[in-house]
Amino acid sequence: MPSAPFRTTRRVDFVDTDMAGIVHFSNFFRFMESAEVEFLRSRGLSVSMRWQGQRIGLPRVSASCDFFRPIGFQDVVEISVNVERIGEKSVTYAFEFAKDGEAIAAGRIVACCCLISQDRKIEPTEIPQGIRDLLEGK
Amino acid sequence: MPSAPFRTTRRVDFVDTDMAGIVHFSNFFRFMESAEVEFLRSRGLSVSMRWQGQRIGLPRVSASCDFFRPIGFQDVVEISVNVERIGEKSVTYAFEFAKDGEAIAAGRIVACCCLISQDRKIEPTEIPQGIRDLLEGK
Amino acid sequence: MPSAPFRTTRRVDFVDTDMAGIVHFSNFFRFMESAEVEFLRSRGLSVSMRWQGQRIGLPRVSASCDFFRPIGFQDVVEISVNVERIGEKSVTYAFEFAKDGEAIAAGRIVACCCLISQDRKIEPTEIPQGIRDLLEGK
Amino acid sequence: MPSAPFRTTRRVDFVDTDMAGIVHFSNFFRFMESAEVEFLRSRGLSVSMRWQGQRIGLPRVSASCDFFRPIGFQDVVEISVNVERIGEKSVTYAFEFAKDGEAIAAGRIVACCCLISQDRKIEPTEIPQGIRDLLEGK
Repeated sequence: MPSAPFRTTRRVDFVDTDMAGIVHFSNFFRFMESAEVEFLRSRGLSVSMRWQGQRIGLPRVSASCDFFRPIGFQDVVEISVNVERIGEKSVTYAFEFAKDGEAIAAGRIVACCCLISQDRKIEPTEIPQGIRDLLEGK
Repeated sequence: MPSAPFRTTRRVDFVDTDMAGIVHFSNFFRFMESAEVEFLRSRGLSVSMRWQGQRIGLPRVSASCDFFRPIGFQDVVEISVNVERIGEKSVTYAFEFAKDGEAIAAGRIVACCCLISQDRKIEPTEIPQGIRDLLEGK
Repeated sequence: MPSAPFRTTRRVDFVDTDMAGIVHFSNFFRFMESAEVEFLRSRGLSVSMRWQGQRIGLPRVSASCDFFRPIGFQDVVEISVNVERIGEKSVTYAFEFAKDGEAIAAGRIVACCCLISQDRKIEPTEIPQGIRDLLEGK
Repeated sequence: MPSAPFRTTRRVDFVDTDMAGIVHFSNFFRFMESAEVEFLRSRGLSVSMRWQGQRIGLPRVSASCDFFRPIGFQDVVEISVNVERIGEKSVTYAFEFAKDGEAIAAGRIVACCCLISQDRKIEPTEIPQGIRDLLEGK
C-alpha cells in the first residue's frame, strides 16, 4: 500500500470520558470505526453499501488497540488510517492516534467483506475488484 | 393501570461514569430502555417482535428524565417500571430510580406501536388487542 | 434571549444506529450534549471548567426529547442550540434537530451551576455574573 | 494460574445492536470490562479502589478481540474471565464469549497497576502483594 494514510481529527466529547477523567478505552474503538468510515467515504465506499445490486457489508472480525497516553475532555486527537493489507476477503486497517504530535494509541481493525441477504444473513465473499481498486486508491 | 410496578436492579458499570465521577445523564435512558425491555419480556413482549406473522416494533417517540441525585461506579440502582397509559397507538411508561430507598431520578418514555415492513419501513399502527392485554397484565 | 441560535452539524456514526436501522433514541442526548458543549466553547465556557480559582460544573438536572422522524447512518443532522432561560442557578437549552430542512427531533436540557470541591462534592451555586454574561452573548 | 475461570452472563440490550442487526463490535469491550470488574469484585478488588490509604487504578493499556459469530438482541452470552498472566505492574485477562456452548468471540485485556494522586495524576506502580494474592485466588 504505497498510498499516504488518510487523516482526520476528532474532538473528545464529555460522554467519552470516565471517572478516571480520561477517555474510556472502549471509545477508541468507536473513534477507529468513525475514522474507518470517513476513509471509506473518501473513496466512495462504506461499511454497509449497495454494490451492483447487492448489499455488501464490512463487519469487523478483529479489533485491537494499545494505549500509550491518556487523553481528556475537549482534546483534539489526530487519527490516521492506513490500509495495511487487502486479502481475498478481508481488509486490515492500521490506526494511529496522536495529540500535539505525541502518540496516544495505535490500533488495528480487520473487516471481512460480506454479502448481506434480504433476510439479513451475513456470508463472507471475495472483495469485488471495483471495491478493491477503490481501497487501493486506484 | 392498577397492577404493581415491575421492578429490576442494575449495577453501574465503569464505562457508565464520566469525568465528574458520576453516571453520565445519557445512560439513564439506556437504563430505562433496558428496564422497559425486561418488563416487556416478563409479559411475553419485546420492543421488536414477530406478532401474528408481522413484525411489530415499539420505537420511542418521546423520552425525558429528571435527575435528583448522582450515582456512581458499582452502585446498585433499583428501577421500577409502571405502565402509565395505553393509548390507541402508544404506551407511556413511568420509571423511578432509587438507591438505598432514596429517589435518584424519574423518567418517562412514550413508545409508538409500529408495523415494520420487509424493507424496514416503519408505520404507526393500532396496538393489537393481544399486546394490549399483555401490557395491562391481563 | 434575543440572540440567534447556535448551529452545528453532526454526521451519524455506524455505532449510533440500532437493529431498527435508525439512530438509537438515547444517542440524541449525546448529540445534544455535544452541541451544548460546542455552544459553550464558542462562548469561552464549558460544562466543566476553572472559573476564578474554582471548579465550576454544569451537570444536567433534566433532559427530554421528542422524536418526529428517524435518521440513519451517515445522515448529516443540523442541530440548533438556543439558550431558553437563565435562572438563578440553572440554564435551560432548547435543541432542534433537522435534516434537509425537515424537523427530526426537539429536545431540552436543564443544567445546574455547581461548585465542585477538591474531593469532588457537587454543590449548586448561583451562576457567576461573568458566566451569565457569556451565556447571554453579552 | 491454575484457578478455574470466573464465569458470568450478560443479556444483550437493544442499544447494543447496530443496523446490521447484531451487537456492535465495540460493545464487546464494554462487556469485557464489565466481566473484568465483576471478577475483581468477587476477589474484593476493583479497577478503581482505595488500598492501604492510596488510590489504586487498573487502567487498560491494551485490548483486543476476535469475533467469530454475531450475537443479537436479547441473546444471553456467557463470558469467562481468566487471569492469564500477572506481571510486575500489569495483569492480563483472557475472555471467552459463548452462546449455547458455541464460541462467539475471544478477547484479551492488559491492565496496568497505577497510583492515582490527589490531582488525578496516573503513575504505574508495582502490584502490591495483597492485590497480587487476591488476583491469584490465594
